[in-house]
Amino acid sequence: MGTTGTQPRLKNLELAAVGGSDVHVKMLAAPINPSDINMIQGNYGLLPQLPAVGGNEGVGQVVAVGSGVTGVKPGDWVIPANPGLGTWRTEAVFGEEELITVPSDIPLQSAATLGVNPCTAYRMLVDFERLRPGDSIIQNASNSGVGQAVIQIAAARGLRTINVLRDRPDLQKLTDRLKNLGANHVVTEEELRKPEMKSFFKDVPQPRLALNCVGGKSSTELLRHLAPGGTMVTYGGMAKQPVIASVSQLIFKDLKLRGFWLSQWKKDHSPDQFKELILTLCDLIRQGQLTAPACSEVPLQDYLCALEASTQPFVSSKQILTM
Amino acid sequence: MGTTGTQPRLKNLELAAVGGSDVHVKMLAAPINPSDINMIQGNYGLLPQLPAVGGNEGVGQVVAVGSGVTGVKPGDWVIPANPGLGTWRTEAVFGEEELITVPSDIPLQSAATLGVNPCTAYRMLVDFERLRPGDSIIQNASNSGVGQAVIQIAAARGLRTINVLRDRPDLQKLTDRLKNLGANHVVTEEELRKPEMKSFFKDVPQPRLALNCVGGKSSTELLRHLAPGGTMVTYGGMAKQPVIASVSQLIFKDLKLRGFWLSQWKKDHSPDQFKELILTLCDLIRQGQLTAPACSEVPLQDYLCALEASTQPFVSSKQILTM
Repeated sequence: MGTTGTQPRLKNLELAAVGGSDVHVKMLAAPINPSDINMIQGNYGLLPQLPAVGGNEGVGQVVAVGSGVTGVKPGDWVIPANPGLGTWRTEAVFGEEELITVPSDIPLQSAATLGVNPCTAYRMLVDFERLRPGDSIIQNASNSGVGQAVIQIAAARGLRTINVLRDRPDLQKLTDRLKNLGANHVVTEEELRKPEMKSFFKDVPQPRLALNCVGGKSSTELLRHLAPGGTMVTYGGMAKQPVIASVSQLIFKDLKLRGFWLSQWKKDHSPDQFKELILTLCDLIRQGQLTAPACSEVPLQDYLCALEASTQPFVSSKQILTM
Repeated sequence: MGTTGTQPRLKNLELAAVGGSDVHVKMLAAPINPSDINMIQGNYGLLPQLPAVGGNEGVGQVVAVGSGVTGVKPGDWVIPANPGLGTWRTEAVFGEEELITVPSDIPLQSAATLGVNPCTAYRMLVDFERLRPGDSIIQNASNSGVGQAVIQIAAARGLRTINVLRDRPDLQKLTDRLKNLGANHVVTEEELRKPEMKSFFKDVPQPRLALNCVGGKSSTELLRHLAPGGTMVTYGGMAKQPVIASVSQLIFKDLKLRGFWLSQWKKDHSPDQFKELILTLCDLIRQGQLTAPACSEVPLQDYLCALEASTQPFVSSKQILTM
């Protein structure tokens, strides 16, 4: 699926010849992530030259490889090594270095959604604060792809999660679903603002880590409930509002404001470190501790419906294009 | 000088008997810092029980010591080990552990202003980013006590300083004075907002460290000019406005927002580490690399004039009470 400006459309592209270091891949499934939409709209830290093929995540199967390719073989499952690959297509010829192999004994939806959100969730839980089993963390947008991965990875590590959601019609159903994933506490943005939360934190340790995908007022509430010395990591800005911290939160409460971007993490780390991360996550998947987010599979030709559905408010399932 | 509510006044207090671990100190000089004013107004992270004696910094001379005192002797110069000592008085009896000795071969004004601002400046320059000679840093409120110490300590460490000031009547005179202290660049808040600053940063490396004593729009400008991955440390909020960071500055530019409070640093470190810091600063003073900020000495009985002068806008010299 090609994207020109903000108007994506399906287009037939000539398949390149498979050179010595090339890999011919048949795409199997590729999700539509919020950051894909941001990229199409031009609101992203990394923008491809246009025209470009959309999609930054997904899983494909190797059909054929060039004579110089040693790391993958036909039949292998592969995912993008970096953003910008363009995964919303039926097949393509990629350079070997653009791909990394994933085990094919995990569910297809897990493989298709492995390379961005669970990686982001894992790194944010591990790289910013030294947390021990029993410690708590707080996050907003808890129903996002990253949010669901955070709940599961945190639970696997013995961390308690306080999950903030916007109030919505199907709140109880969604709360139940997140609790089934391992969420310890689910609260609405509105509840979080109430004075009653004080008594909540008598029983639950104040979080030392907050994960912010929203910004604006929602992040203000996360900061308010952070323990002294704690860190808020921003990885998205759904509210399109900045993050605001009072001077006294910074000075007297020693709160730390950071950001996380997986693309930057990959630049700062070796491909082997990324592969190690992927294998760690595959272990969690095999142990049943990490499942794919709730997904709606949509055939590629129905991409317009899928794009439309992915930008609806309160969407509770991720759109996955299947090829 | 006692403070009751927001109305400080002079009062005679009974001098306590000098017990075994006590030290009788005659105060020599004590500055009025912005944080002293904040404390009187109740806007500070640490507030004494009222009535209290104001002043958190200053130097005194030991008159007599109790039989169990081993670390100081009559004639020594001493400064407060911690905030809240109440330095705006002629004499007092303190516990030995409330004081630390400073060499008496440094100027009186340097000793009186050593314990807070230069310590804050030094820690902020050293503890947040690993800076090498030639690297640059940017700060606002560059004429403050901390600001002047930052200029001098940075120069001693081979760092280039970009010093931001509010426009004011005596700008050229002040610019000259800061350049005499070692400031490499002095710019006004207004100049910093102009597009011409782009060409400025062709010649000067983008700062990896920003020191913010203002908040609001001024801190927004500091963030805008920080190098990717850089840190802004907030240590004051003169504008009484919060710090605002865009989501993309946090995620894509990886800017880090932190705070610094010397009282917290002291809690987290041993008294010996504080003494070591004081001695490091005394070395800089003896080498002529660190001078006291421009001071106006005012006799203690004229405290009302001094307090009034210390809260004027664009005040260019620190009020020091002498006893």
